Amino acid sequence: MKVLIVHCHPEPASFNAVLTNTAIEKLEQDGHEVVVSDLYAEEFNPVEGPGRYTSRRHSSYFQALDEQRWHYESDALAGDVSREIARLEWAQTIIFQCPLWWHGVPAMLKGWFDRVFVYGGLYTGSQRFDRGFLKGRRALFCVTTGAPETTFAPLGRSGDIAALMWPLHCSLYYVGLSVLPPHLVYGVQGGGLSYQQDESFRAHLDMAKTYWAERLATLEQDTPIPMSGWEDWDEAGILKSDHPLRWRV
Amino acid sequence: MKVLIVHCHPEPASFNAVLTNTAIEKLEQDGHEVVVSDLYAEEFNPVEGPGRYTSRRHSSYFQALDEQRWHYESDALAGDVSREIARLEWAQTIIFQCPLWWHGVPAMLKGWFDRVFVYGGLYTGSQRFDRGFLKGRRALFCVTTGAPETTFAPLGRSGDIAALMWPLHCSLYYVGLSVLPPHLVYGVQGGGLSYQQDESFRAHLDMAKTYWAERLATLEQDTPIPMSGWEDWDEAGILKSDHPLRWRV
Repeated sequence: MKVLIVHCHPEPASFNAVLTNTAIEKLEQDGHEVVVSDLYAEEFNPVEGPGRYTSRRHSSYFQALDEQRWHYESDALAGDVSREIARLEWAQTIIFQCPLWWHGVPAMLKGWFDRVFVYGGLYTGSQRFDRGFLKGRRALFCVTTGAPETTFAPLGRSGDIAALMWPLHCSLYYVGLSVLPPHLVYGVQGGGLSYQQDESFRAHLDMAKTYWAERLATLEQDTPIPMSGWEDWDEAGILKSDHPLRWRV
Repeated sequence: MKVLIVHCHPEPASFNAVLTNTAIEKLEQDGHEVVVSDLYAEEFNPVEGPGRYTSRRHSSYFQALDEQRWHYESDALAGDVSREIARLEWAQTIIFQCPLWWHGVPAMLKGWFDRVFVYGGLYTGSQRFDRGFLKGRRALFCVTTGAPETTFAPLGRSGDIAALMWPLHCSLYYVGLSVLPPHLVYGVQGGGLSYQQDESFRAHLDMAKTYWAERLATLEQDTPIPMSGWEDWDEAGILKSDHPLRWRV
C-alpha cells in the first residue's frame, strides 16, 4: 500500500521521530511505499489567513472558505497546500504522528487541517462524511502522551482518551477517511540527555518501537471505527428516530 | 471585573470581531475593564519549537517543557509569551473568542495554548487542576460554528458539541481556571459581501449581538462546569472507587 506519514514534532531526534523512522523502515520492509510530510522540517505555515493567498477573490473581506474554494477551482492554491493534497490523493493510508499537546494536536498539525482540507476541494456540503472526497482511504493517529496510561481511563484525571481523540477522528471522517483505532504511546517524558543516557527511557522507546512495528504489520486487516453516515441521518442531520443505534442513549 | 478577551480571527470585520466588539462595549458599559489579545492583529506566532527561543537550555535537543521551565525561571521567555502571561495574571475572567475550525480552535489559538501555558510557570506536576496556577479565575469560550445547531445535538452528524468542547475545557481546567459553559453561535456562514448586504445574515448577527450582551450581563453569576479534583482521585489518577460520581458509569 501507499502510506503518507504526516509527521509533526520540532525535534528531529524525538521519540516521535523514532516512531516515524520505525514506521518507514517496517513499512518499506513489508513492501509498502512511504512518503513523509515532515511539517516542522518543511517549515509548514499553519496559520490560515490572508497572508496565505497572493491573489484574493475578495480583497476587502477575508472569508477562508470562499478563498479556499476559489483558489482550488482556479488551481491557484499555495504550493505547500497543493503538495499536501497531491500526497493525500496518492496515499491509500495516512498516519498522523504527533504528541498530544494541550488535549489536541500541536498548532503546526492543527493548521495543516485548517489549510489543507480545503473547502470546494476536499469537501463540499454534499461531499462529506461517507460521501467524502477521500473515501476509500484509511487514516489513524499515532500519538504520544506525557501523562501515564491510567490517567487517561474513562474516569481518569487526564480525561478519557477516547473523548480526547473524538474531535480529531471527526475531522478525518469529515473528508471521507475511514478512521482506524489510534496507536497510543503513553507516559513519554524527558528526552534530551536522558534519550541517550536514561535506561528506563531507552527501554520505553525500544518497547514502543516493537509495539508500533507489530501494529503496522497488520494495519491492512484493521477494522475502522464505526461511524454513522448520510443514510442514518434525518433532514436535520440527526440520527433517524427509528435508527437501531438509538438504544444507546 | 477585569476581563481578558483572547480574540482569534483573521478578518477584522468578521462575525467574531463583531462579537468581540460587542463584549468590549457591553462590559465597559457595565463598569468592567477589558483587555484584548488580538492574535492575528498582533501576529502571534503559534509554532512552539526551537525558533521561539533565542537562548537554549539544551542546544542539541529540543524538549519543549524543559525549555519552557528554564526560560520561565530565568525570566527569559519570548516577549509575546510574557505579555500573554501578564494579561492572564491581571485578568479575573478570560473569554476565548473564535470560530470552530475542524472540530477545534484555529491553529493560531491552539498555538497560544502550546506556547503561553508554560511548564514550570503556569503548571507543574503538583500545581494543576484545582491546585492550578490560575485558580480563582474564570474562563469561557464564545464560539461560532458553520453548521446549524441541530447537527451538533448528541446524535447529530456534526458531533455532540459538548464532546467537541470537552478537550478545550480540559485545557482551561488544567491550569486551574473555573470553566463557565460556552456561549455558542451556530450556523455562521458567508460574511464578505453578504455581511453588508444579506438581510438574513444581518438579522443573525444582530440577534447574536443581543444574546451575547445578555449572557455577559450575568456572567458573574454563572456557575462553572463541575470538575473532579485532587481529592476525588486515587494514587493512579482515577476517580476513587467509593466516589459518589461512580454511579454515572
